[in-house]
This record gives sequence, C-alpha cells and structure tokens, in this order.
Amino acid sequence: MSGNSIGKLFSVTTCGESHGAGLMAIVDGVPSGLALCAEDLQIDLDRRKPGSSKYSTQRRESDEVEIISGVFEGKTTGTPIGLLIRNTNQKSKDYGEIKDTFRPGHADYTYSMKYGFRDYRGGGRSSARETAMRVAAGAIAKKYLFERLGVQVRGHVTQMGSEHCKEIESSEIDWEFVNSNPFFCADKDAIVRFETLIDSLRREGTSCGARLEIIASGVPVGLGEPVFDRLDADIAHAMMSINAVKGVEIGDGMAVAEQFGHSARDEMTPDGFTANHAGGILGGISSGQDIRVSIALKPTSSITTAGKSINAQGEAVDMLTKGRHDPCVGVRATPIAEAMLAIVLLDHYLRNRGQNADVVPPITAIVH
Amino acid sequence: MSGNSIGKLFSVTTCGESHGAGLMAIVDGVPSGLALCAEDLQIDLDRRKPGSSKYSTQRRESDEVEIISGVFEGKTTGTPIGLLIRNTNQKSKDYGEIKDTFRPGHADYTYSMKYGFRDYRGGGRSSARETAMRVAAGAIAKKYLFERLGVQVRGHVTQMGSEHCKEIESSEIDWEFVNSNPFFCADKDAIVRFETLIDSLRREGTSCGARLEIIASGVPVGLGEPVFDRLDADIAHAMMSINAVKGVEIGDGMAVAEQFGHSARDEMTPDGFTANHAGGILGGISSGQDIRVSIALKPTSSITTAGKSINAQGEAVDMLTKGRHDPCVGVRATPIAEAMLAIVLLDHYLRNRGQNADVVPPITAIVH
Amino acid sequence: MSGNSIGKLFSVTTCGESHGAGLMAIVDGVPSGLALCAEDLQIDLDRRKPGSSKYSTQRRESDEVEIISGVFEGKTTGTPIGLLIRNTNQKSKDYGEIKDTFRPGHADYTYSMKYGFRDYRGGGRSSARETAMRVAAGAIAKKYLFERLGVQVRGHVTQMGSEHCKEIESSEIDWEFVNSNPFFCADKDAIVRFETLIDSLRREGTSCGARLEIIASGVPVGLGEPVFDRLDADIAHAMMSINAVKGVEIGDGMAVAEQFGHSARDEMTPDGFTANHAGGILGGISSGQDIRVSIALKPTSSITTAGKSINAQGEAVDMLTKGRHDPCVGVRATPIAEAMLAIVLLDHYLRNRGQNADVVPPITAIVH
Amino acid sequence: MSGNSIGKLFSVTTCGESHGAGLMAIVDGVPSGLALCAEDLQIDLDRRKPGSSKYSTQRRESDEVEIISGVFEGKTTGTPIGLLIRNTNQKSKDYGEIKDTFRPGHADYTYSMKYGFRDYRGGGRSSARETAMRVAAGAIAKKYLFERLGVQVRGHVTQMGSEHCKEIESSEIDWEFVNSNPFFCADKDAIVRFETLIDSLRREGTSCGARLEIIASGVPVGLGEPVFDRLDADIAHAMMSINAVKGVEIGDGMAVAEQFGHSARDEMTPDGFTANHAGGILGGISSGQDIRVSIALKPTSSITTAGKSINAQGEAVDMLTKGRHDPCVGVRATPIAEAMLAIVLLDHYLRNRGQNADVVPPITAIVH
Repeated sequence: MSGNSIGKLFSVTTCGESHGAGLMAIVDGVPSGLALCAEDLQIDLDRRKPGSSKYSTQRRESDEVEIISGVFEGKTTGTPIGLLIRNTNQKSKDYGEIKDTFRPGHADYTYSMKYGFRDYRGGGRSSARETAMRVAAGAIAKKYLFERLGVQVRGHVTQMGSEHCKEIESSEIDWEFVNSNPFFCADKDAIVRFETLIDSLRREGTSCGARLEIIASGVPVGLGEPVFDRLDADIAHAMMSINAVKGVEIGDGMAVAEQFGHSARDEMTPDGFTANHAGGILGGISSGQDIRVSIALKPTSSITTAGKSINAQGEAVDMLTKGRHDPCVGVRATPIAEAMLAIVLLDHYLRNRGQNADVVPPITAIVH
Repeated sequence: MSGNSIGKLFSVTTCGESHGAGLMAIVDGVPSGLALCAEDLQIDLDRRKPGSSKYSTQRRESDEVEIISGVFEGKTTGTPIGLLIRNTNQKSKDYGEIKDTFRPGHADYTYSMKYGFRDYRGGGRSSARETAMRVAAGAIAKKYLFERLGVQVRGHVTQMGSEHCKEIESSEIDWEFVNSNPFFCADKDAIVRFETLIDSLRREGTSCGARLEIIASGVPVGLGEPVFDRLDADIAHAMMSINAVKGVEIGDGMAVAEQFGHSARDEMTPDGFTANHAGGILGGISSGQDIRVSIALKPTSSITTAGKSINAQGEAVDMLTKGRHDPCVGVRATPIAEAMLAIVLLDHYLRNRGQNADVVPPITAIVH
Repeated sequence: MSGNSIGKLFSVTTCGESHGAGLMAIVDGVPSGLALCAEDLQIDLDRRKPGSSKYSTQRRESDEVEIISGVFEGKTTGTPIGLLIRNTNQKSKDYGEIKDTFRPGHADYTYSMKYGFRDYRGGGRSSARETAMRVAAGAIAKKYLFERLGVQVRGHVTQMGSEHCKEIESSEIDWEFVNSNPFFCADKDAIVRFETLIDSLRREGTSCGARLEIIASGVPVGLGEPVFDRLDADIAHAMMSINAVKGVEIGDGMAVAEQFGHSARDEMTPDGFTANHAGGILGGISSGQDIRVSIALKPTSSITTAGKSINAQGEAVDMLTKGRHDPCVGVRATPIAEAMLAIVLLDHYLRNRGQNADVVPPITAIVH
Repeated sequence: MSGNSIGKLFSVTTCGESHGAGLMAIVDGVPSGLALCAEDLQIDLDRRKPGSSKYSTQRRESDEVEIISGVFEGKTTGTPIGLLIRNTNQKSKDYGEIKDTFRPGHADYTYSMKYGFRDYRGGGRSSARETAMRVAAGAIAKKYLFERLGVQVRGHVTQMGSEHCKEIESSEIDWEFVNSNPFFCADKDAIVRFETLIDSLRREGTSCGARLEIIASGVPVGLGEPVFDRLDADIAHAMMSINAVKGVEIGDGMAVAEQFGHSARDEMTPDGFTANHAGGILGGISSGQDIRVSIALKPTSSITTAGKSINAQGEAVDMLTKGRHDPCVGVRATPIAEAMLAIVLLDHYLRNRGQNADVVPPITAIVH
C-alpha cells in the first residue's frame, strides 16, 4: 500500500528503474473472463515508446511486455496479473558524468536527500521509463472499460510550447488522425508548426512544454466516492503523479475563476445537459457526460544547454547533460495520461458497483 | 478506508451533512505530546464560517467544535482524536422546493443516480458544510507542523471573477493584512474592486469564481512517495476534493506548457535555488523551497437567477433556488485549502520519517 | 487509514477512551436504502453493556447511541454514518492510584513506552470501553446482512474457565435461550456451573478466561480476497483485535494438527458438503457452509489480588487494583465478536460484488 | 491495495500461479542502504522449496529468484524491489483429470464459484506455490530486522499429527539443530517418530496436520497500532493467510480460556517480566519480550485416497488425485510463517517510527 500502488479495488503496483533489469507491474482486481493477451498491451506500449518517430528521443527500447500470471486460456482469471518488461537498451555510460552532480530541474537532489543516495543512471526510478508499466496496466483497464461498458478513453495534444491547436468539439475529433501523426494532434494545420518547433528546439538544445486533453466518453453516471475520493480528486492524483505534470484541470479548469454562475453551470433537460463546463463530473461524481481532463507538462530539463548546479559535495558546478532526450515530453505522454484515466475509471466503476449495485436510480440517466 | 478518509499515517475521516445533527471527524495518527485544545481549532473554524462578513453567506453557524477524545491533560495522547460540531442553524424550509428537482450545477442529480435518493436539504453531504471538519482537522496538522517543524501553511485569494490581484513575491506577502480583510487578499488595491464586484453579483443574483494560492514555507526536503503518492499528486488529490475546485496547479502550473527547458528549470547553487518554477516539488518530492499551489473554484450554482433543469420524474422544469448563498465561495475556501495542504504535509512527514528516519543525506540541504 | 480503521469498502473508524467525553464511530460504505434508527443499534449495545447482570461489572453506562449523520427519512443515504455515545458513569477516582504505576497484564506499560505517557483513567484507549462502538457499527452490518442476504451472525460461550459446555450441532442451538441468560450459553446444564464459578472468582478476587464460538449462517459462496485478504485471514485479524483475545480458530482450528487428510476434508455431493471441518472457508473463500469461528479470551488482569509491578520511575511496587471489573470478560465479548464477524462479512460482500458482480458461476451453489 | 497486497508502510504485493510462467513480488517501503543480493533471499527459499528432502514433495523447482529493481551497487535504494521466480518444473499433465472436477478440501469449488472458472493446473493461485514469494519478500524484512535492530525471527515444528515435541524454553532451543533436520524440529527424540509417521502416511496415501511455533526475539517495545491494527491482530491476519492454517495463537493461545487472572498475568519487575503468558504483546503492542506465535495447519487434501466430490456439471464423482504432494505441509511452512511474521514486524516498526520517533519513553525499557 505504499507509494508505488494506486487504486483500491482495481489496483496497480509497479517497480523498475531506467537502467535496471526491467520493469514490473502487478495488476490486481481485474474482473475475470476478460480476453487478454500481450498483444493487447503492446499496442499502447508502442504508441508510447521511445524511437517511434524522429521527433522524439533516440533511445530505442522494444518495450516487449510479457504476461507472467493472471491469464489462463486467453482470459483473465480474476487473480493478479503480473507484467514484465526487460530493459534492453540502456546506455549507462551516457550518465557517468552525473554520478556526483545533481541535474537542475531533475529529481537527483530530492531523491538523494530523501534516500541518502540514488541510482543515478538515467534518473533511476524518477525517470519516465517507469511509465511504460502504467501504459501496460492502463491497457487492461481500457479493454475492460471498452468491451464491457463502451467507455472510450482517448487523448490528444492541444498545445506545444507557444503553438496552440484550434478548439475542436470533442464529438468532432478525428481520432484516427490523432493516432496517425507523431504528435497525437487533432488539428491538421498545427502539425507543420509542431514539426518546425521541434526541429528548432533540437537545434537550440532546449525543450518546451505541452498541454494535453484526455476525454472519456460513455462513462456511466455515478462513479466517484465523495468527499475525499471524488472522481475528479482521484483523477487529479493520477495525472499529477505523471512525471513533468504541473497542472490538472477538469472541464473548464482554471478558467472557471473568471466565470459567472448563471452561465457556467450546465443546465439539464430531459434529453441531456446543455453544456459541459463541468467536464463530466458534478459533486465529485460522474454525470454521464464526457469527462474532460487537461494537463500541462513542463519542458524536459534534460537538454544540451548548460545550467548551474551543485555536486555531491555541495560545490557549485556547471551541468551539461548529454544522452538521448525528448525536446517535448508531451509527444509521448498522451498514452500515459489515457492509461491513468482508465485506471481511475475502472477502480471507481468497481467501487461503485460494490457499494451500489442494488440501487435503482430514480429516473433514466439523461445522458445515454 | 472508503471515500471519506484521507491520509495513510496521519488520517482524517469525516461525516456529516448540511442539515443533519452535526459533523464529526476522527483524526488518527497525531503524534503524542502536542498541546491541543478546542480553542486551537476554533481560530481556523472562525475564519471559515458563514456569517463572518457581509460579503459571504447569511447562514450563521457557531461552528463550535468539541474534542471528544485523544487529548488528556491538554496534550494529544497518540490515540485518535474525535471532533464534533453540532449544526444549529439549519433552515430546512429553504430547501423544501427542491426536494423533487435537480438543481443545475449541483450534485443533486449525480447523488440521486448513485445512491437512489438523497438528503436534499442544503445539498446533504455534497454541501460545503462538511468542509468545517476538514478545517478543524487541518488545524491540528498545522499546529504540529508549525510548532515541531516551523512549517507554515497560508493561503490568499489571487483573483475573484475578472478582478486580478497584482503579483507579490511570496516572501513579501503581508499575512496579517491577508487575514484581516474578508477576502484573504494580499493586495490592498484589489479590496475595493472585490467589494464592488460582490455587491454587483448579489444584485444581479449571480456569482463568480475565484483563484487562490496556498504556500507552505519551511517544508523539509524529502517529503513525497513516488511514483503514485508523489507529494504533488497527493496535494492535487486533496485540493480537487474540495467542493467547486476545477483546477490545481503546482508552481507555474498550466503555464509550463509554454515554457522552455533552459529558462524554466530552477538552477541550484550552494546557497539555494535560483528560482522556484517547480513550486517546491521536484520528482514528486519536496525540495525545501516554498510549496506553491494554486486552485480555481467555480462560481456557486446556488444563485437567484432561474435555470433549466429536470425534476425527479424526468420532466423539464425551471429552477429558482432561494436560501442563503455565497456570491463567491472563494471567500471561504482559503482556510479549507490551507487545511488540506497541512493534512497532506503532515501525512507525508510521518510517512517519510517512518521509512527514512535513518537516512544521512549526502550534503546539508541547500534550503534552510 | 491508520490503526483505528477496519475494512476497505465497508469501513469502520472509531475513537474514544474509557473516561473521555465519549466514543465515536464513522461507518462508511453502507449501501443506501437500508432502514436504520438508533434503536436498531441499541439492542446489541444493551447485550454488551456493563451492569446488565449481577455477574458482570458494576459500572453502569447507559450506552445510548445517537446517529449523527448518514440516515435520512429513516434510511441510510450511502453517505458515512456518524455514531456518538457519551460516557456518563466514569469514576475517575477509582484510578487515581495507578497514575504512576503500570498494572501487570494491562497495556499501561506498553502504551506509556509507545506514546510517552497515557490517559491512565480506566485504561484509556486500551480499555474494553471502545468496543461499544464496534458493537454499534457491527449492528449496522448485521442488519444489512440479515435483511438483504439472510445471513445471521450469532455467538455463544462454549467454555468458562475449566467449565466446558457440551458440544451442540450449530443447527440445533437454541439461540433464544442463548440470548436469555447472562452467559450467552447454549447448554442449560452449564449455567449453574458458570454461576458458581463466577461467584467463587469474585470471592477469591480473581478471574478466569473464556472461549466463544461465533457462527455465520447463510453466507453466500465466494467471499474472500486471496491471497492476503482471505476471508479467514480478515476474520482472524478482526477477532484478534478484540481486547483479551489470544487465539482464533476457524472450523476445527488448532485440532487440525492431529487430523488425517482422508477424514478431515469435507467431501462434496450435489446436495452439499458431508461435513464442515473447514468452518465454511476453503482456500480463503466462503463455501456457503456455516462459518465457524472460535476465540479464547484471557482472564482479566484487573483483579483484587495484589501483583508485582513497577512504577513510572522503574521501581518495584505491589499493585492492587480496585474499581469495577469483570470476573470473566467472556460474558460481554459475545456481541463484540458477532459485530466483528459481521463487519468483515459485509466488507467482503461488497468487495466481491465490486469485482465479480458479472460472474456466472459454473453450477448452482451446492449449499443453499 | 487489493487482496494480494499486505502491509501499509512496508508492503508486499505478489502474483503468480502454480503452473503459470512464474511468480512475482513487489516489495515497497524497504528503507534504503540495506545490503541486498539475490543470494540473501535464496537461503530461505531453499529452506522452503520442494524436493529439499525425501520427506516432502517430489516436485523439484529451483526457485531461483532474480532481483529486477530497487537495488543499486549492492544496496537497497528505497525504491520498490521487484522479485521474479520462473516456474520450471510444472507437470501440467498431472492435473488434466481434475479440469472438470472440484477436489474435496481444495479451493477448486470456491474459486470457480467466485470467478466463474479457474486455472485448474496445480491449484492455480490457490496453490502453496505462491508462498515462495512470501518467503523471498520476508527474507528482505528479516535482514533489515536483524542487521538494524537485532531482531531474530525463527520457527520450529512442535507437533506433527499425533506426535508432539517436548516443551523447550524458547531461550534453550538449538536453532542450528532445528535448521539442520528436514522437520525444523528442536526435539532430537521426536525426529525418529516424525520419520516413521511420514513413511506410514505415504504408504497409506493420506496426510496429517502440523503445529508450528514462531518466535521473534529482540523486538523493541512499542510496535502495534491499536485498536484494529494491534500487532497481534496483524500477525493473526498474516498467519491465517497462509494456505492450510486454521488456527493462530499468541502466547498461551487458546489455553488462556482455562487460566486464572492472578496466575496468568505476567508480573513486572525492574529487571523484566516474570513470565510470558502474553507472548510478548500487551494491549496489542509489543512489550519487548519474545513474541510467541503458534499456528496449526490442516492435513493436505491432495492425497492418493479417493474421496467424494462433484464435477463441473454438479454430478457426484469419486475423486482420486495423483501428482506430487506433501504428506505433511508443515514440513515446509516454517520459513513461510517466519517470513510473514517478519513482514508484519517490519511494517509495524516503520509505522511506529513514523508516528512516534520523537517520543521519549518515561523509563528505560525493562526488557533489553
């Protein structure tokens, strides 16, 4: 139940460092009878993995996942599912220089102060490498949600650095297009601008941040456990736990500060809600509308521009990191954020069913 | 361990509805020997309570808290502390009309669909009334954090509707002034504009949102349990669990999307960090710098402007809510957000001490 | 989530000391729509309370419970239920002498060493007083289990000191008789022997232990979450958490060490099992048979015979405790043990429903 | 946080079936800086593994454990430790016949009813195979407890079937002898009787139960989190979670029912306690004395004597299981029980340190 576990009924526990032998996850509480094989997980792993396009990092990991337990004759048994990914492409020598220094903007300093020392190769446990397991576990959640409930969890990049995508109604997003370009971008016109930006960032040896939107459609009404485990609270927790995320928004997010009550609330009619400022969650419980989550990721600090730092003796040094890095981590965070949302939704689906399976709602849900 | 409990070592469990007999909290894991009495909690409760100023709601609750257990001869015993607040000023007749309707923007619909029916008086458990207990429990956390560790947790309003406060360095905020005006505002010039705004909102029968910043200073380095219970993830969870919150930011928050790596990272020197874009958390672990959290609260939906909704038979109706409401919930959320941050920090302090009390950090912390 | 909370979906959190203002419980995860009022809880509280008979302790508490939240118009709302019992009959002066001494056999020494000091009045949190809240919370669980599932949880005393009851088939126990005598005893012939024993123990200023059996009938098949949260493991946890319990057995319990495989296993036929050595749990999951749990409680150490101990300065002293004590705590532990079993069963019922509500069992359960 | 996870600060999550690809564990919350390598874990794994002696099962697994993460340069990093053991010696054809039948005394029926179907090979997740991971994880706990605190956790068999060992003071047990014979037996004279018994059980095609005692010495005073997470409650939970365990006792266990208060309590002197009826735990908190736990394991139901059962269509059948089985599972449960006790003790050590690291005990502990 420590910090490397998430979820109460459907829970995911992970381990693994950037340059260790591999990554593991134990996914517990998966209902039985779900068809599952490693290929189901590989799809999302491949969407995430390094080396997928010339716009992301050059480290090439196959990220081949193996299912160790919990599946028999092609179906989940209800017992915990073990997942294993071996690391194959660590270049430890890339990191030898930082052994005794703390890279600015990274977790080197905080990990060393907390634990006394750290696995300095590639950031150790603080590296985004561990997110591969979130994606694999999230793929299991996505499969159940889709096949059993018709819930779809899909994300796209809405902003990269100063380049904004145009606003598109969630019902009009071309998801095939989103998943066919390396930026997970829904706006055809923005692609060229993104490519230009990435190229110039690489040349300048720096990086930029990104903003993503993740949408869950078809979510049943009633998920969420007020007052502390509100659905949006657990979503915020899951998203903020992703490396580099510094902000999480539900629905209109931070913009609600400027809104007025009479225009910001989503009115109801027998045929559904008239708007979705709330982002699909009311009072911490899903309303049946699309759940809309936005997150902002900070620019990678692993850039080839030198920065001021200190070493393990507390002396001032200039840091120059080399190695293989992303000019924009946003390019790969999309499947990670989808996975986290799926994990939270499945956990809450099971929790709600556990307590409230007998409930007869007073009316038919107004969102179908 | 259900949804009404937060925290792993220092945990707070609450119950209570808007118009029930009262509110209760059980605060478990408080270290022994802390001087504590009901007056210590009353200070923050009074900062939160309705009727404190003419700019907030008219419901007048005394919010007098009683300590039922866990304190002996004026000190905490290490056993769980029970807190009780009786509701005394419920006006149930204010809500009689909404018994069979679902107020737009409220949780009436979602609660009814989830549980089959709801306590409709004043929003029942979904009402902000329950936050009184968060504040009482948070006051215990604040006291320990301050007296034992020198950690201070303080919040202020940075925006109300379209009225923004000017930016002030956190080290220059006049906290006495903040806590002497009804808006918890640090910017003297903004007070008048806030007053004008509130008055016009009340006349127009609507409401606006708000944006708050909460700062924790003096936090030791090393708090946070990666990868899922990162300190920022647990903070986001705690903040998003507050009624009306729709966005949570750490440090520069959503703005990091536009930033560049070489300027956004906080460089380090032997005398500390050169900036604090990160908001005091690196890799999910506290760095020793001020922890800066911003939240946005949506405008109250309980306004005297009519809105479209449906009733418990699924028929379209026009909703007009009467009663006693806040034109800006932000005025009272400041102590609530402080309480939530304090709760998370104390829980993480104990968790970190549990696992890492023996650790000898490699160097002296660069933030003192 | 600290030590004063039990259960994952249906969870009970308590607080309160022997001589504090009162006891509280927050019961979270109760499904909505269950008819509930304070009288429902008072029945079991009265079965437990001191002063019920001349054979137990003389402290007379009314143990009147008040429902603070979570019930509206006579039914549970699905929100957390708050319970409050005020202490009214503390005789603090009875304990003045032990302020600076550690009573042998009690938790005085361990609490003081763990927390630095203790509320010495009546044992503080270590007193059996806190079990009143377990009984109140357990009554809610019992009500749901019985009304919705037909599950009955009932206990009886099978041994007091050296006096054993004769063995009676669980299906032949006269529960009305059990609950009409002050010993919760099913064996008419044993009553007289128990009375004689109690009287002589009181005269001699000492006490004896007891052995109880608690039976849950009508339990559906499938409850339990292997491998760590097996149903029997959680039952053992719940029972061993009761003051004075030193042993827990499921089915044949410790006697299985002497048994042979071919006679000890419960064979199956289409009409049910041929025996119940297993006590209703196989592989950590309920089989549908009666769940049989036995516990042994040690004799109270609060007796009027002097004993050797030390004081708060570490010096040897002779301890003589006065006050109002039970010669046999077993007389009152029966409703407490029933409550704990009910709490575990309801939690597991909800957990199993959460994960497995969709499961279609391969055959009709062989126990009906 | 589901059923396959144990512990709150130091937590162990496992997965893996008898005939799947392998077993995995994620051990989270291990303090950093502990020297650790796979060989450290192999010692206890070898004590447990099948094929160690001619008196246990014939399945020969190497049980070679690999450390996947959490260790760097030979020391734990504080990040989660991943463990992997590949299954290499499954004989799936041994189990083909039971595909459609439910073996009496096994979990086949309950698993199938709970999950809808089961991995029938070797008992799937219900097999004792999963205990290999408990032993590996427990070895980490044991190492920390011993090297940092001087705590030793050791077990021995006190009874096999009707053959009892003589009583030996825990301080006089020859642990080297215990660990040099295949029965983990401390009584030289009992060995021959055990051998004779095992041989006759094998000839007769049946099995017997066993009784074990596990002792933890050098435990600091103050571990345990009343009232629900008392140290003895968590120990009972951990022990009862082991396959085949049907009874758990602390100290004098079930025998306390017959004891008298004046002789059963452990009196205190400045030099320690005069006895240890309590088994080292008072009021749910460790007293510093040896913690004594006894458990009883039922005889294996996997025997070559036929038994009545039903098949997956609900029809009566005669079951005859073949394969490789233990005539007495007690022979291998000793390291498993040691592991579980170590896991609970380390978790409680960290939890107590988390909340109470600042506490100054009133006197020097009377047990050193």
